[in-house]
Amino acid sequence: MNRKAVVLLSGGLDSATVLAMVKAQGFEVYALSFDYGQRHRAELDAAAKVARALGAADHRVVKLDLSLFGGSALTDTSIAVPTEGSSGIPVTYVPARNTVLLSVALAWAEVLHAGAIGIGVNAVDYSGYPDCRPEYIAAYETMANLATKTGVEGERLQLLTPLIDLPKSDIIRQGVALGVDYSLTVSCYQADTAGAACGVCDSCRIRHAGFVAAGVADPTRYQAGVTPAAS
Amino acid sequence: MNRKAVVLLSGGLDSATVLAMVKAQGFEVYALSFDYGQRHRAELDAAAKVARALGAADHRVVKLDLSLFGGSALTDTSIAVPTEGSSGIPVTYVPARNTVLLSVALAWAEVLHAGAIGIGVNAVDYSGYPDCRPEYIAAYETMANLATKTGVEGERLQLLTPLIDLPKSDIIRQGVALGVDYSLTVSCYQADTAGAACGVCDSCRIRHAGFVAAGVADPTRYQAGVTPAAS
Repeated sequence: MNRKAVVLLSGGLDSATVLAMVKAQGFEVYALSFDYGQRHRAELDAAAKVARALGAADHRVVKLDLSLFGGSALTDTSIAVPTEGSSGIPVTYVPARNTVLLSVALAWAEVLHAGAIGIGVNAVDYSGYPDCRPEYIAAYETMANLATKTGVEGERLQLLTPLIDLPKSDIIRQGVALGVDYSLTVSCYQADTAGAACGVCDSCRIRHAGFVAAGVADPTRYQAGVTPAAS
Repeated sequence: MNRKAVVLLSGGLDSATVLAMVKAQGFEVYALSFDYGQRHRAELDAAAKVARALGAADHRVVKLDLSLFGGSALTDTSIAVPTEGSSGIPVTYVPARNTVLLSVALAWAEVLHAGAIGIGVNAVDYSGYPDCRPEYIAAYETMANLATKTGVEGERLQLLTPLIDLPKSDIIRQGVALGVDYSLTVSCYQADTAGAACGVCDSCRIRHAGFVAAGVADPTRYQAGVTPAAS
């Protein structure tokens, strides 16, 4: 089995934990980030720091401007970022995002002859996202093994989704045990240019509640005057 | 059924024919091209002309630099473009290309609430490409309908692959019947900046042989002094 793995690394809490978990499984990790016109560009700086801190073999950033299509509060500046809990599919959902990100990861995985792709999907906190569900991941893996030269030649590729059924508090506990420095990560949908978090968007609320539930002091850097709210 | 369709349009012969075929099926067509670091950038100018000539409702070009990963003669300038017929998977294969292109098309399709994505895959002339096979297309469609908000809400998306089992000569005959002006299209892997074809690469050879077999005069603009060779 090939021990290289491409890991999608946004610079947020979840993907940093995936990187540490996949490395702990014995893979040599290749971190992949996207500059896709999202508002929270401070995440890219965070991704570079996390990749270095966790010993990734390489870290690449692919430019891909999905804001061309609109349709999400994260890429379309005409849609407001929500600051309260919402039900159904959130407006922060980016059209086909995981499919796009996994597909570019697949291209790199094929060139590297990697045996795995790691992605921080979570069906607990983000149950409103269709592309975070186990049935989606299984269908993607089936497709991916039909898509590539390496797949056709018998090199099996697996998707690693170690967070898929973990509550945020367990993700944090496991990450802390693996030495993830969460002060480097940025999850906020509207972080400032230095990466300080707003404390009130959905992502900040879920993250802070996770630290509280895990019994771990929240190391997040918040913007001046902000007291984080739990969701 | 939703009558919008996103059609992947490279500017080559095949994708121009797909655009005409999908439109003839009654869809309003949205053409999508990629600027992905390929050598044959003249194709992008051709794509814009073809989209306009065939009455596409919109045409977008997404920048995506896959040459970052290397692995193909089309994106990696250190690998020579082959000029003779080859067997097996060609070196001009771009890693996971159709998966990447379809995934960005899926993002646009979701925003448009489109019912279909058209792609010019062909299992006859390009049998060496894993991502041109019917089993790959079927797996992609299954995955796509699990991936999106619109899919989850019951809007079925279908992949349209009208060329999949057609020899090049039939593609050309059907395109001519639908009014496709092939002099606008560029298929050559190493076209010059004005879009004139080399006449000797695999793509030129397959294309020219198609015109010969179809009994249609080859309208391709070749570089000065070139006599096209049939494959």
